[in-house]
Amino acid sequence: MKISVLNEGSVTAPKGFLAGSAKAGIKKSGRYDLTIVHSPTLAAMAGLFTTNKVKAAPVLVSQANLASNQGWGHAAIFNSGCANACTGDQGKEDAKAMAQATAAALHCEMNQVLVSSTGVIGAYLPMAKILPGIADGVAAMDAAGGSLAAQAIMTTDTCPKEIAVTVEVAGKPVTLGAMAKGSGMIHPNMATMLALVTTDCAIDPVLLQEALKEACDATFNMVTVDGDTSTNDCLIALANGQAGNAALQKNTDLGYGEFLEGLIYVCRHLAQMIAKDGEGATKFIEVKVEGAKTRRDARLAAKSIAGSSLVKAAVYGKDANWGRILCALGYSGADFDPDIVDMYLGDIQMMDKGKALIFDEEKARAYLEGDEIVALVELHQGEEKAAAWGCDLTHDYVSINADYRS
Amino acid sequence: MKISVLNEGSVTAPKGFLAGSAKAGIKKSGRYDLTIVHSPTLAAMAGLFTTNKVKAAPVLVSQANLASNQGWGHAAIFNSGCANACTGDQGKEDAKAMAQATAAALHCEMNQVLVSSTGVIGAYLPMAKILPGIADGVAAMDAAGGSLAAQAIMTTDTCPKEIAVTVEVAGKPVTLGAMAKGSGMIHPNMATMLALVTTDCAIDPVLLQEALKEACDATFNMVTVDGDTSTNDCLIALANGQAGNAALQKNTDLGYGEFLEGLIYVCRHLAQMIAKDGEGATKFIEVKVEGAKTRRDARLAAKSIAGSSLVKAAVYGKDANWGRILCALGYSGADFDPDIVDMYLGDIQMMDKGKALIFDEEKARAYLEGDEIVALVELHQGEEKAAAWGCDLTHDYVSINADYRS
Repeated sequence: MKISVLNEGSVTAPKGFLAGSAKAGIKKSGRYDLTIVHSPTLAAMAGLFTTNKVKAAPVLVSQANLASNQGWGHAAIFNSGCANACTGDQGKEDAKAMAQATAAALHCEMNQVLVSSTGVIGAYLPMAKILPGIADGVAAMDAAGGSLAAQAIMTTDTCPKEIAVTVEVAGKPVTLGAMAKGSGMIHPNMATMLALVTTDCAIDPVLLQEALKEACDATFNMVTVDGDTSTNDCLIALANGQAGNAALQKNTDLGYGEFLEGLIYVCRHLAQMIAKDGEGATKFIEVKVEGAKTRRDARLAAKSIAGSSLVKAAVYGKDANWGRILCALGYSGADFDPDIVDMYLGDIQMMDKGKALIFDEEKARAYLEGDEIVALVELHQGEEKAAAWGCDLTHDYVSINADYRS
Repeated sequence: MKISVLNEGSVTAPKGFLAGSAKAGIKKSGRYDLTIVHSPTLAAMAGLFTTNKVKAAPVLVSQANLASNQGWGHAAIFNSGCANACTGDQGKEDAKAMAQATAAALHCEMNQVLVSSTGVIGAYLPMAKILPGIADGVAAMDAAGGSLAAQAIMTTDTCPKEIAVTVEVAGKPVTLGAMAKGSGMIHPNMATMLALVTTDCAIDPVLLQEALKEACDATFNMVTVDGDTSTNDCLIALANGQAGNAALQKNTDLGYGEFLEGLIYVCRHLAQMIAKDGEGATKFIEVKVEGAKTRRDARLAAKSIAGSSLVKAAVYGKDANWGRILCALGYSGADFDPDIVDMYLGDIQMMDKGKALIFDEEKARAYLEGDEIVALVELHQGEEKAAAWGCDLTHDYVSINADYRS
């Protein structure tokens, strides 16, 4: 399987996508805070949204649009600086008005536009700024507008997060572009991860939804910064078919495997960028679990370890506290036998068949000085494996989150 | 229902209990680190142990003893400074040897002694210190030894945790004494770190186990400090019948309700003490959820809010960030309708029927200056309610856990 990563790739890398961004004045900083990504050709659409019972207005509106447009649409609009969450009926009217204004400017139906917001919760959208911002964004539409779009969705992110790759789908080169924002699975103000994948692949919307779910489960759903699931999470995909491949209809179709690999690649890249940019993080942590009986067991185990406050604090303190890793494995809900577990930190083995090994503490400490820490747990129960990504728990995480709203 | 709290009550407050503690030298500090609580009269025994799949050796040995002694025994021995967890076959032999040596000194059977350990994971018990420590503890046995026992089980606790109450069971005064330790790795599931309840109530062991489970679910299992469920959690009860009441056999027996209330009272008191003493904590947080459809919903909701890192960091920062409370409610798994939720911080209402209220930020900040913070959520779904307890997430929590093993 060949996946080529493009230099400076963005959501406008696939054929037939435009993006236009604006400084609408929602953010006090005056930075870009609104962006519209548009496929003039009707595109297959798929979306995954937060499982939180408290869903922000744009999530509700996007879900309704996706249900009524049969999986076909033209655009997604994002704003940062205000999450439009916990805003009741007014919030829903505002989110609908955003879709409506965007649709009018792009000459499509309101339900062919998905809406996402991120930022402060409990505040109403400043519609007097949003509506002119939409006009500005549409006026700025450009086939090279992807990178500005990735900037416009940032909140506390310290860097924009984007990527594009090409894969070959049944003989045709297909491009996938993607961007995300997030500084944790949840952002301090409940408006966390937003991500968009664009592709020129021709693919049926039902299959696109299936692929998106599979990719999300293996990537974005394996990131944890603080265990809080936000009200605004969403991952949207637009596939406009401009690559000219025979449209993918079933998951057994020639080329679907390659498309899915490409999709997983871009999602994994963004997921890891989110973990690396975790609030206050000084270290990126990758937890690999191998030899699990089922994929579910592997994922439960990896995510439990990556999410343990005690493991995260130990990594911050450069303390090879393998007991905490084993403890988090123990309460993960994964099926395993503690007496046959092997464990490694980098290439330093900590446990062999359930027994603690005497290891070189200095060498372990030197390894933990690094920026990227890999913990590997081998369960010896089967063939399944998974990885989860997170970051250390630091004094700065506490500072950022003690002060955010003030 | 009348519950009288004793002044300076401890596990030796009920009739017929002795405790003896020793400085065995397991802790480097030289403090008390071993204690034995003894009922010369055969006592009904019950125990709840960690649900972590990685169980420390003393947990495995105590579970086996409780299974083989038919719920009747004489003593519990505790040591701090070494958890005897992840220690394989040697650990199990050592835990058995602790029970054996205690039983020999107290002239009872090995399986009539329960064993608990707390402290560093992955180190072997220093048996050359433990065995003389047991002899010292037995020699120090005293009917006023309860308070020293509560000191001997401490690790990172900043204060001992103990209480005793009397209740009337079918006309007879019955006393319950209890002690616990715990400060970090606190997210009990079935039982907390280490806790012991003694009582002179006459009660059948099967009913004692049922009462202990009910009390634990409402108290220790509603405490969370960091979401990590330990390998060593255990809650043990000993009931020696010295109060002279007609033995309680069924949960419909006269006086059982009073006994259960007393049991819940002492467990709740210790659970709250654990939350107040949470590692690095500056504030105690009580989350009350009312109007839930089921007790399970109420408990899920309360515990999810109390366990949210973002809620905990906001309380530390004295930030009335009600959005985070609603967010944690949303991902709790509890059944509710976000549009009819009321929320209060102290007596300041934040939400009314799902709508954010404009509140006095200065008044809210002044409230959050206090040491004890109460958040109340009214779901308007039914009659069930629950409380959960936790603490704020502070810079000191990170410092303590970045350095623990070093």
